[in-house]
Amino acid sequence: MHREIERKFLVRNDGWRGKAEPVLFRQGYIARTVDRTVRIRVAGNQGMITVKVKVGPISRHEFEYEIPLHDANELLNSLAPVEIIEKYRYTFSECGHVWEIDEFLGANSGLVIAEVELQSEEEEVELPVWVGEEVSKISKYFNASLVQSPYGSWNHNEKQP
Amino acid sequence: MHREIERKFLVRNDGWRGKAEPVLFRQGYIARTVDRTVRIRVAGNQGMITVKVKVGPISRHEFEYEIPLHDANELLNSLAPVEIIEKYRYTFSECGHVWEIDEFLGANSGLVIAEVELQSEEEEVELPVWVGEEVSKISKYFNASLVQSPYGSWNHNEKQP
Repeated sequence: MHREIERKFLVRNDGWRGKAEPVLFRQGYIARTVDRTVRIRVAGNQGMITVKVKVGPISRHEFEYEIPLHDANELLNSLAPVEIIEKYRYTFSECGHVWEIDEFLGANSGLVIAEVELQSEEEEVELPVWVGEEVSKISKYFNASLVQSPYGSWNHNEKQP
Repeated sequence: MHREIERKFLVRNDGWRGKAEPVLFRQGYIARTVDRTVRIRVAGNQGMITVKVKVGPISRHEFEYEIPLHDANELLNSLAPVEIIEKYRYTFSECGHVWEIDEFLGANSGLVIAEVELQSEEEEVELPVWVGEEVSKISKYFNASLVQSPYGSWNHNEKQP
């Protein structure tokens, strides 16, 4: 078990590009409740099952296990195509933290989110210049929400920046 | 992935007792949908996460992975106590098949179910003399149903010997 505390931001510009190679992520939620999600992910050629249990506003207990790639693909294939999120993940260090940039594809194309993982909810983070508005607590940006209401379906005025 | 095809029966009498040692099972569903369940189980000192996807009346695709015992207990502890099922499992061979007997505890005390796993939905099974009424398709006997409506809460007339 891993305590996951992360902050999410929109990006202001393309200043993050070129800092890492993309890895294709395909993922979906095979079940969820108000405070728990069960996610299947294929990251590159690795399969994962992840249970997240919410324990605070930006904190979750995360239980992640590698599973056979074939199983992960079968589980994803048991979902409807619209339930699957595809994105490129770019991972690199900057300003003393590891940043993960998700560039969404398909129905969420156009959305780019930067995430940084913290050791505590109060930890200070120096923000790179390309980091924009914080969206940590805005549920429409959660991956689980993007399945039901993809970025491409939002009103133009809702879209940032 | 394993294709699970099983038939469930009530038991007619105690003729199955003494055929195997009991193993204590604690389990709960951390999330579920109409046709998918995600179960955490502690069987003896082994932790498991199991995803089942319904693909037919008595057939499911089962994806089961061992996880650290500590994680399994933490995940179970994230559920409410009433969401956890406890039972003794007895496993032995008889009449050419492996039988699993579940003797339920707690809120489901008094309920005993015998399960046999098959290779196909049509496979013939020779039934031991202690096997009673078949309940394969009666949803109130499913473990996921017993969480919400435990055996102890049923009307007396609903209960089978």
